[in-house]
Amino acid sequence: MYELYYWPEIQGRGEYVRLALEAGGSAYRDVAREKDGTDAMMRLLDAPDVRTPPFAPPFLRDGDILVGQVAAILQHLGPVLGLAPKGAADALWLHQIQLTITDFVAEIHDTHHPIGNRFYYQEQKTEAKRRATVFREDRIPKFMGWFETILTRNPAGAGHLVGDRLSYGDTSLFQLVEGLRYAFPKAMGKGEAAWPKAVALHDRVAALPRIQAYCRSDRRIPFNENGIFRAYPELDN
Amino acid sequence: MYELYYWPEIQGRGEYVRLALEAGGSAYRDVAREKDGTDAMMRLLDAPDVRTPPFAPPFLRDGDILVGQVAAILQHLGPVLGLAPKGAADALWLHQIQLTITDFVAEIHDTHHPIGNRFYYQEQKTEAKRRATVFREDRIPKFMGWFETILTRNPAGAGHLVGDRLSYGDTSLFQLVEGLRYAFPKAMGKGEAAWPKAVALHDRVAALPRIQAYCRSDRRIPFNENGIFRAYPELDN
Repeated sequence: MYELYYWPEIQGRGEYVRLALEAGGSAYRDVAREKDGTDAMMRLLDAPDVRTPPFAPPFLRDGDILVGQVAAILQHLGPVLGLAPKGAADALWLHQIQLTITDFVAEIHDTHHPIGNRFYYQEQKTEAKRRATVFREDRIPKFMGWFETILTRNPAGAGHLVGDRLSYGDTSLFQLVEGLRYAFPKAMGKGEAAWPKAVALHDRVAALPRIQAYCRSDRRIPFNENGIFRAYPELDN
Repeated sequence: MYELYYWPEIQGRGEYVRLALEAGGSAYRDVAREKDGTDAMMRLLDAPDVRTPPFAPPFLRDGDILVGQVAAILQHLGPVLGLAPKGAADALWLHQIQLTITDFVAEIHDTHHPIGNRFYYQEQKTEAKRRATVFREDRIPKFMGWFETILTRNPAGAGHLVGDRLSYGDTSLFQLVEGLRYAFPKAMGKGEAAWPKAVALHDRVAALPRIQAYCRSDRRIPFNENGIFRAYPELDN
């Protein structure tokens, strides 16, 4: 069974992996959420005999394979979960989309931590306000506009990011829209009309029975102010 | 022939692709450096009939394939250039390393642009000083220490990041050390003794005939203050 290792109290970067495992109907252990699980995660991260030590959580254990980096985990899982296209060119395109999502997620994190994780948010709030303004005005439109563009250009139609079947890119886009609505409700309220295809894809993913079941379960950790997406009203003004 | 598209006046993110193409002995066009080349790049980026529009440069054209995101480009090129291991598990490990390098590069960029690219460096210098301090003290040691660890644990020895042959990970690590020495000479001067294997690998890559020839040629753009690595003494204090 797949073992996912990620911080147990946040959705964070691990959520893109959780959503793919859930959408694919795969059994998995969310190890750090089990009893003494965070200790197990830290032991594995620090174990001197691990040949391929991940730089940071999340990472996935799949038998002998230990793999970190969300986009690499999803590339590894995608074909097995039925969440990646079969052709090599389409698989590369999907991966490229996920890597762009990775960049977006890093920028989202930095809206509340523009200086670094050494300091609490309160200690970098002034800088955060300035960065968040640029993020809301320049970066959300650029990234969301790009998703809208690639949906428009999908030769199989705007039902999915790649081809005509659900992929981990679609579940990742769902999470982005969910999170942005949580963290930047005002900015999203103003912006969403410009990205109808992306929002419609979010809605379709949200309506999938497996995603609905997951989001209603306690396996889905609620958004909170320790995660990537944080509801700080002063950053949404 | 491969066509690389990237900003013509900086090494930037494109350099990781250039180095792989050079180390692999591949012919390629650096399109934006040709006459009217930047216009050609922007036209391709904006062309409405491109099915897989990259989010941003660099991107590579390989026949019918147009691929952006450095790590995806290198994953695509690696096997053809002889710069990726043959086994799937090793190839995934190499890709994971490159994705971690991607994260490091984004953090390096943000030392001089912690607020965003909308503002000139001079307009975010105060924030940059604060972020650069955290970067020098926390992040350089964490990333460089990780490279040292994975070199130490490579079962084939510390000669290369993965296995016993040159890969695009090695040429990327070369570029990181070169760039960090340019941008943070004092921090690197103090820090390098802690990462002897990583520095030795940098030196071996630097001594490769193809890399030497490239670095002496005008195909190698010198470091400058428009790129990712910038020599701002106030950020290295």
